[in-house]
Amino acid sequence: MGYLFLLDEAGLERAKPGLRLAERMGLPFRHVDLGLLEERMGLRPAVAGLEEAELAGLGDIVDAVLVEEAGMMDPERLVEYYYGKLTSMGVEFSFNTRIEGFIVEPRRPLGVEGEPLAWQDARVAGVRVEGDREVKARRKVIAALGAWSPMLLNPAGVDSYSKPKKRQVFVVRADGGRAGILRARGLNEYDVPPMTILPRGVYLRPEPGEGSFWVGVSDDLGRPFKLEDLPRPEGEFYALSVLPVLSLYFPQFQDAYPHAAWAGHYDVSFDGQPVVYEPYESGLVIVAGTSGSGIMKADAVGRAAASLVLGFEEAELHGGGSMPVKWLGIEGRRVEEERLVI
Amino acid sequence: MGYLFLLDEAGLERAKPGLRLAERMGLPFRHVDLGLLEERMGLRPAVAGLEEAELAGLGDIVDAVLVEEAGMMDPERLVEYYYGKLTSMGVEFSFNTRIEGFIVEPRRPLGVEGEPLAWQDARVAGVRVEGDREVKARRKVIAALGAWSPMLLNPAGVDSYSKPKKRQVFVVRADGGRAGILRARGLNEYDVPPMTILPRGVYLRPEPGEGSFWVGVSDDLGRPFKLEDLPRPEGEFYALSVLPVLSLYFPQFQDAYPHAAWAGHYDVSFDGQPVVYEPYESGLVIVAGTSGSGIMKADAVGRAAASLVLGFEEAELHGGGSMPVKWLGIEGRRVEEERLVI
Repeated sequence: MGYLFLLDEAGLERAKPGLRLAERMGLPFRHVDLGLLEERMGLRPAVAGLEEAELAGLGDIVDAVLVEEAGMMDPERLVEYYYGKLTSMGVEFSFNTRIEGFIVEPRRPLGVEGEPLAWQDARVAGVRVEGDREVKARRKVIAALGAWSPMLLNPAGVDSYSKPKKRQVFVVRADGGRAGILRARGLNEYDVPPMTILPRGVYLRPEPGEGSFWVGVSDDLGRPFKLEDLPRPEGEFYALSVLPVLSLYFPQFQDAYPHAAWAGHYDVSFDGQPVVYEPYESGLVIVAGTSGSGIMKADAVGRAAASLVLGFEEAELHGGGSMPVKWLGIEGRRVEEERLVI
Repeated sequence: MGYLFLLDEAGLERAKPGLRLAERMGLPFRHVDLGLLEERMGLRPAVAGLEEAELAGLGDIVDAVLVEEAGMMDPERLVEYYYGKLTSMGVEFSFNTRIEGFIVEPRRPLGVEGEPLAWQDARVAGVRVEGDREVKARRKVIAALGAWSPMLLNPAGVDSYSKPKKRQVFVVRADGGRAGILRARGLNEYDVPPMTILPRGVYLRPEPGEGSFWVGVSDDLGRPFKLEDLPRPEGEFYALSVLPVLSLYFPQFQDAYPHAAWAGHYDVSFDGQPVVYEPYESGLVIVAGTSGSGIMKADAVGRAAASLVLGFEEAELHGGGSMPVKWLGIEGRRVEEERLVI
């Protein structure tokens, strides 16, 4: 259904290099008339002079860019697909099996306490799981642990160079004046409202099937890098960090409070891009830092990891292209800054 | 006094690209005759057939490379120099003052609980120190926290992309057969033995003034990334990880046990090179990941940090060269892998 970026002056300036790049690469986007968005979605583009806008330093929406090929994906459907395929190929899954640590051992053990010793050629041989059970790898171990990467990898002396940061989603019913937004026509071929990104990164994700919206924002400075055991959504975060921006541009949300919410962790790498590498030729392939654009990159990241495990220098990508695996590694890393991110 | 690399076949192969590079750059090194090292330092280069060599998979020393301009520096002398200079320039120092956290606040505060809110333009304004005291920066805050970087930075939502790893040094007296090593002549103009690096990274650092040697090795896979409150040197680490290699090539150490030892933390960045950057234009300049070659790079790292704080894109280096500050940052990072590291 497309991603609709609603840009104020400052946002437009920041978006320009990304838009120019998209144009050069032939990636389709179009500017949407603000009057149309007022009419179809109830957008209030002109906010100058309103007290809330002054307080927050927020300006008028001056441009709306619809990236037509962007959209949403149901992660469960994707996971189900892989699960079914892999099961039919004989892959075994162990659910609800907590990893306690990685087994680091010398390739030529001496049977001495404290192995591996510093001069030994060591490798990661498998994992210890709860109940003091060991699972050994026939060839290599792949650690794709998301937000739990550093917690589980650091005791083995290796790192994902990514860290967990809490993220929250709030669900608001599409009732009252908000119901109209879900009926917005003419913005894409499905006649549903697009995923909409407001200034300061506040997003409004329509869920027509549920009759609701998912709303939120990613906060950075001041939001700890930290793994919480039971991350909880924070009501004040919705009220003070999301709602003021959302209800400024969509006044239908002025009295909207969430009826549901959840929280989890992003797994954020040092440069925001996935990390795929095998430290110290240890037999352990680390795949991490995929949050933010994880699911859309999952196929390519998986192919890079598989290539690394199998000893190939190039990963063959969907569509026939290929990429040196080391581009996602630490040495030889070559990633570009992403533009038009949320 | 130079760094003397004692290389077995595998080590020589790994060292070759670095040596070729040094040659092209005109950096002086020379090959030292192994017979001379046998005579002056008591080196045993031929170990093939010895049980300890077989067990450890260690081979004969086949080449010895003396990097003549490498050497050692007394960190206290350097620190005293800076301390004296800065004090005379009016800089105030606060020793024994524990930082409890960074103050993150909006540039335009509203006086609301929970600030900074996600849409506010926030910055790091200073630090909270013990006793609930705040110290505010007039301009910017520089966080040069070594191994304590992630622990103190992560609660503010930022990271140094470096992690602590324990390192240990053991002190062995130069008595008995070992005394001769300190009297080794003819290897440099000071007539002292060079810092010597054995296969697998075990090092022997002569301390003629103390009549002792500092010995150790850096272990990676299996050594946790972790900050210990009171890191202690481990006797077994010396006995099992250092001594077998040391005493194989220098049999004078066969019965040598340390009379002193200490442990601390390295601050290891994701690519082993220093990190200097200001996340989110927050007014907080992070300087970290300097361990391993820290003190020799301290001048350049300090100049890069000062340039960043003052808003210059280039740092003027000692000797008149200059370097874009972003080369040590996260975006725009451009560092080379170091060769001939210990």
